[in-house]
Amino acid sequence: MMETWRKKGGSAWERTKRAPGLACRKMWQVGKDDPRRAIHAVKVGLALTLVSMLYLLEPLFEGIGQNAIWAVMTVVVVLEFTAGATLCKGLNRGLGTIMAGSLAFLIEFVAEETGQVGRAIFIGCAVFVIGAAATYLRFLPYVKKNYDYGVVIFLLTFNLITVSSFRVSNVMKIAHERLITIAIGCGICLFMSLLVFPIWSGQDLHNSTVNKLQGLAKSIEEAVTEVREEESDEEDKSCDEDPIYKGYKAVLDSKSIDEALALYASWEPRHSRHCRYPWQQYVKVGAALRRFSYTVVALHGCLQTEIQTPKSCRALFKGPCIRLASEVSGVLMELATSIRNRRHCSPELLADHLHDALQDLNKAVRSQPRLFLGSNCSQASNMLAVAAAQARQEKEREEEEEERRRCCRAPRLTHRH
Amino acid sequence: MMETWRKKGGSAWERTKRAPGLACRKMWQVGKDDPRRAIHAVKVGLALTLVSMLYLLEPLFEGIGQNAIWAVMTVVVVLEFTAGATLCKGLNRGLGTIMAGSLAFLIEFVAEETGQVGRAIFIGCAVFVIGAAATYLRFLPYVKKNYDYGVVIFLLTFNLITVSSFRVSNVMKIAHERLITIAIGCGICLFMSLLVFPIWSGQDLHNSTVNKLQGLAKSIEEAVTEVREEESDEEDKSCDEDPIYKGYKAVLDSKSIDEALALYASWEPRHSRHCRYPWQQYVKVGAALRRFSYTVVALHGCLQTEIQTPKSCRALFKGPCIRLASEVSGVLMELATSIRNRRHCSPELLADHLHDALQDLNKAVRSQPRLFLGSNCSQASNMLAVAAAQARQEKEREEEEEERRRCCRAPRLTHRH
Repeated sequence: MMETWRKKGGSAWERTKRAPGLACRKMWQVGKDDPRRAIHAVKVGLALTLVSMLYLLEPLFEGIGQNAIWAVMTVVVVLEFTAGATLCKGLNRGLGTIMAGSLAFLIEFVAEETGQVGRAIFIGCAVFVIGAAATYLRFLPYVKKNYDYGVVIFLLTFNLITVSSFRVSNVMKIAHERLITIAIGCGICLFMSLLVFPIWSGQDLHNSTVNKLQGLAKSIEEAVTEVREEESDEEDKSCDEDPIYKGYKAVLDSKSIDEALALYASWEPRHSRHCRYPWQQYVKVGAALRRFSYTVVALHGCLQTEIQTPKSCRALFKGPCIRLASEVSGVLMELATSIRNRRHCSPELLADHLHDALQDLNKAVRSQPRLFLGSNCSQASNMLAVAAAQARQEKEREEEEEERRRCCRAPRLTHRH
Repeated sequence: MMETWRKKGGSAWERTKRAPGLACRKMWQVGKDDPRRAIHAVKVGLALTLVSMLYLLEPLFEGIGQNAIWAVMTVVVVLEFTAGATLCKGLNRGLGTIMAGSLAFLIEFVAEETGQVGRAIFIGCAVFVIGAAATYLRFLPYVKKNYDYGVVIFLLTFNLITVSSFRVSNVMKIAHERLITIAIGCGICLFMSLLVFPIWSGQDLHNSTVNKLQGLAKSIEEAVTEVREEESDEEDKSCDEDPIYKGYKAVLDSKSIDEALALYASWEPRHSRHCRYPWQQYVKVGAALRRFSYTVVALHGCLQTEIQTPKSCRALFKGPCIRLASEVSGVLMELATSIRNRRHCSPELLADHLHDALQDLNKAVRSQPRLFLGSNCSQASNMLAVAAAQARQEKEREEEEEERRRCCRAPRLTHRH
């Protein structure tokens, strides 16, 4: 008992000793994984310092006064990692503030007629009704997706103005000053996110689509390698190290990230020399890739089952299976390259090879009917066929997207085949 | 051209005419889907009215003054749908405010020594460094997951205090008053979310797990029904109407929702007569269910492929296939019921039946080696076998969870077999 305690204590002490080093390494890793994070941090620091000038410099302070805290608040809350997210939040904040200000002014106008007690009751009721209605509105899927933050800001500003107007006479002046300071804050945020080392959600979405295609291609390649390796030294690889799992893992859980990026990308203006990102098409491609990856998961499951195909059977179908798989992964890689470079890829070339490989496998399967008893080969081959068919659908969808992209007629989008 | 325009105009006009009715129906639907949403909206309205009293009632206003806006702000931002989310945000806000206050006080203490210009430069530098460091910290996965909101509040409060302290002498008083009003706001939020019709994330997680199990069971049942129906009237069902798709759709995309619910559930105290929700186990069960659903997707793909099994072949394996599938869906349903009622289910009974059904199918497959040429049956049967094996794993995992739950020794958690 004492021993256990000491051991535990020891390990806890050691963990505490190692903690600062570990934290430092993690911090470094975060910056190394994506150096834009460090740039964003510096941008936020700079924006905050800029907005603090409103307070620190005498002439600026005299013009704005205590309301400058609203500009500080706006910068802290609105400045996000990507330009699209900042624009989305900034616009939401602006809209929410304006609408709340108008409504608060209306209520103030109505309440003015009644006496002090009547006014307090009227304001209390208005706060309750508007609060409940706005909160309920946030549950609507459309509002939740696009204007959730705007409704929160609306509620916040409405309450602050309505309630504080009870003891202050010049509501219009409050609303006006606050709007100006929030506009200053939003202006600084937009300047920082759109003009100083901008980070675009559309670019992130583009890169993540390319990475997902590559990951799936690698998964299939690895699966083939595993089948090819005759020595079946079944070490118990943990799931995290498994290269097949690594390839499709990111694709499976990409839904929420993709949708957020697409939402932000939809707010981004056309920038740089490329056309606007066809974000809606990226979301569709993402959904198709997720569907495709379910098949890869099932294929992976075949490799991991206890009942493995006998070597004699494996040898017979190895050739066609490997050829088909490498064709599928080749198509995926080609798609990844074409998306990365924003170029069309030749449709016939890929489709023909894929079709040939599929026919080969089919022939091989048909020539050996007796072997399928109690083996897994037919499952694997069927799955590869499904995968190939899905890859073809994928490509068609991709082409649609290319078509859309061509409409933008950016200079680099030349048809190259 | 004119015609098109008129048509478009007409449809736009009609859409505008129909919009209010549509919006009303959607609003009603949102409340009907989950009446707790309406309750939450009323709760928010009530909390806002309560906190407005600080302004509206003379004696309360005299004690707190203009700082009451911080209480209003806290209520708007902290009061969330579930108790766990409110607790998480409230604690984050409290912690962030306290840390920011301490740091701001320290910086004020150091800056006091220097002159007015030196002080301005020092504060500017501090704002930049702390702003950049805090923003960078938010990229650490651990911080992002648990304390993201706390860091934002820290940054906000730190900037407000530091910057406004430049023109005000009594920093301590500001910090103190703000802390009290934030505490009042948090208090109202906690009262509303924990004591007035509380909504628990743990309960949501529990229900969603039950629903996912049932959905998967229904998917498999529907797949069997489709196989059973001899008349192959292949209407092109859209994906959304397809009952098989409906069953597993929710499971596939559950990752982010599950993890958020589990995070909030981890903040919730033990409540009602049940023990604390073993939220970590629910997340594991959710991950296993997602893996299982990938197989169901693959099975669904088999039903949708162009190359369909010939009827003669189907007839031969229909019996064992249907039996195995109904066993699998039976196990899932049993698990759903046992989780819903927080009871153990008998492990042997289910496993035996499942095993028998599996053996049956195996025997049927082995007795008809010739038939497998060019058909899909073996794939379907193999997939069902994989599904059965996964269901068994599922059950084992489930048992682990039950074991954990039993440790809590809530009165209703009796072992019933």
